Amino acid sequence: MSAPARVSVERAAAWVDAATRPLGSEKIALAGAADRVLAADVSSPRAIPSADCAAIDGYAVRAAHSLGAGPYNPIAVPGGRIEWGEVLPSGTDAVVAIDHTDMEADGRVLLVEPVAAGVNVARAGTAAAAGALLIAEGTRLASRHIGMLALAGRDRVPVVRRPRVRLVIAGRARAGSPVDVNRAMLQALIERDGGETTSAGLVEAFGPGADIVLVAGGTGRGGEDGAAVALSAAGRVEIHGVALSPGDTAGFGYAASGLPVLLLPGAPAACLWNYELFAGRAIRRLAGRHGALPYASRSAVSARKIVSAIGVTEICPIRRLPGGEIEPLASFAEAGLRVAIDATGFVIVPEASEGYPAGADLIAYLFDEHDTLAERRP
Amino acid sequence: MSAPARVSVERAAAWVDAATRPLGSEKIALAGAADRVLAADVSSPRAIPSADCAAIDGYAVRAAHSLGAGPYNPIAVPGGRIEWGEVLPSGTDAVVAIDHTDMEADGRVLLVEPVAAGVNVARAGTAAAAGALLIAEGTRLASRHIGMLALAGRDRVPVVRRPRVRLVIAGRARAGSPVDVNRAMLQALIERDGGETTSAGLVEAFGPGADIVLVAGGTGRGGEDGAAVALSAAGRVEIHGVALSPGDTAGFGYAASGLPVLLLPGAPAACLWNYELFAGRAIRRLAGRHGALPYASRSAVSARKIVSAIGVTEICPIRRLPGGEIEPLASFAEAGLRVAIDATGFVIVPEASEGYPAGADLIAYLFDEHDTLAERRP
Repeated sequence: MSAPARVSVERAAAWVDAATRPLGSEKIALAGAADRVLAADVSSPRAIPSADCAAIDGYAVRAAHSLGAGPYNPIAVPGGRIEWGEVLPSGTDAVVAIDHTDMEADGRVLLVEPVAAGVNVARAGTAAAAGALLIAEGTRLASRHIGMLALAGRDRVPVVRRPRVRLVIAGRARAGSPVDVNRAMLQALIERDGGETTSAGLVEAFGPGADIVLVAGGTGRGGEDGAAVALSAAGRVEIHGVALSPGDTAGFGYAASGLPVLLLPGAPAACLWNYELFAGRAIRRLAGRHGALPYASRSAVSARKIVSAIGVTEICPIRRLPGGEIEPLASFAEAGLRVAIDATGFVIVPEASEGYPAGADLIAYLFDEHDTLAERRP
Repeated sequence: MSAPARVSVERAAAWVDAATRPLGSEKIALAGAADRVLAADVSSPRAIPSADCAAIDGYAVRAAHSLGAGPYNPIAVPGGRIEWGEVLPSGTDAVVAIDHTDMEADGRVLLVEPVAAGVNVARAGTAAAAGALLIAEGTRLASRHIGMLALAGRDRVPVVRRPRVRLVIAGRARAGSPVDVNRAMLQALIERDGGETTSAGLVEAFGPGADIVLVAGGTGRGGEDGAAVALSAAGRVEIHGVALSPGDTAGFGYAASGLPVLLLPGAPAACLWNYELFAGRAIRRLAGRHGALPYASRSAVSARKIVSAIGVTEICPIRRLPGGEIEPLASFAEAGLRVAIDATGFVIVPEASEGYPAGADLIAYLFDEHDTLAERRP
């Protein structure tokens, strides 16, 4: 096997982008559609609301009846209890909040202030005209979208199919750690990114029946490497070696069946970062999501120098200091996955950079932005 | 029923905090533990690595053999192929990357530079000493934690049990919208926050067999209200009415069985924001997570005035302008759930504030920070 030359992270990401696009669609029940990506525009089948209706719980009244009402001149007007979303009874044109009435008896409501027509009324079609676009293709559905679709009367929606990810654990047995040490981590990552995992051995790795194949382990660049040799035999290796630390032995290619195949290094930290930058990017794109890293980023100031080698994109673990600045931790290449537990996030130092001086303004990615958010809440 | 007085958002949140704490624990398989909260400290059962081992894929050599090696003086030293994580063979003390060797034959490796002892070697116990704390109780497990637990040889972990949320849809039939318009949205929210939903009718709402009860709809403050009257009969209502817009008819109480019961308004936008601030807070806390809103926040500058009534905490939908500033949209109270589809996020205007002038520096919550992040990536 002739090993292709090592490429930049940008080149490898471009390979992933060329190899992947959103999968076809399927119709699923609305209740299970959270986090799925809409595969077609959804328009409103009717006006929403379909008729003038109550915007709050209260009493439906006719505004003209309230003329002259005041704290010293309460007026008993005809009015009926109404809940939000119920159509206004004929002859009424406003809704009075319960707190704004003094009492109710015999179908009459005591008003202590005048009411304008249209108050607390949701007019027909204000949320959406019939046929209006409600939610655009490509939207990743959150709870609020699901609520809106239910309001429009949809109980099924077309979404991008979940990517079927075939996960193959290769490499040799380790002393002290299970050979499939990366399996649970990769399954969790694939699930997070919208894929579903099936497992296979290296022998049945490259046949049809999946949307993408990930092989973890056995990617060292020697001629005897299991993963690259197997892919060479069953298809082709297009890239072997990426200027990324940790994780420079990543491979990219196609099985003879046309399936994209990504080879991930077996060392857990290298496996994690290769997944995040390349395999995860592929799966997110297949699922119709953005390919970008699914971590929140923020402007940050580093309290200490961050050192990185030129010629390699480096993922540098960082810790957030109590004052809000960041500082670098030992590198993933030296310290392995453990440092990802101690870190609050990471900085990406590009290939052309030697790092940053103390005090530099950076973009930091945070593993969990909610901890920080929690401190900010009232 | 005597209706308790309307309380502040802070008071209602404090009620939720007093009513909820993390549930008991269960042991589950590591592969399904993503997003669950660790219910006990996990320590390393052994040193990681358990012995000196290769930190990269390469060749294991003895550093002393490489003395004097150089580009013009390649030295063939005894060396064997090794993968990351494999224990160094006796007599070796360094690992040479494959790229740094010229060839290999007959169990010898050609070195073109000297190697120092310990290079590319992960020493026993550097990731964790035997018995060292690996991951602390209360940690919400992400993929990297799962990888670390696998590396430590764990295949099951103790996690906080998932909250069992009994969802009751009350209220009256709507014209044009299904009566259970909030069901799918609430199910998605409950799932997002780590709970599992069971459905029930109002009659069987308050018995045991759940950890919390949510009743959506029928919360208007009139004496005839289904939800509050039913809870009064089956337990007690402690709060009815919160100074929140949208969603001031929320209720809080306990069933006779001791279950906390939250009454959510039926209007979808009011239901959503009551869930996010109170019911979701309760479920997140039961699941062992932070109670805070699960949205990323950022400093933001508003290009326009944001107006809000004094005496009510208002959730104000905002849109991010192309330049990065924000502007307010029509209020949820006026425009309903639809505006949550158009919005990129929201601002919370506290009860004591009338809003903010144009140009004010605010904290904005963003629905999807990844769109923004994507633009920032190299």
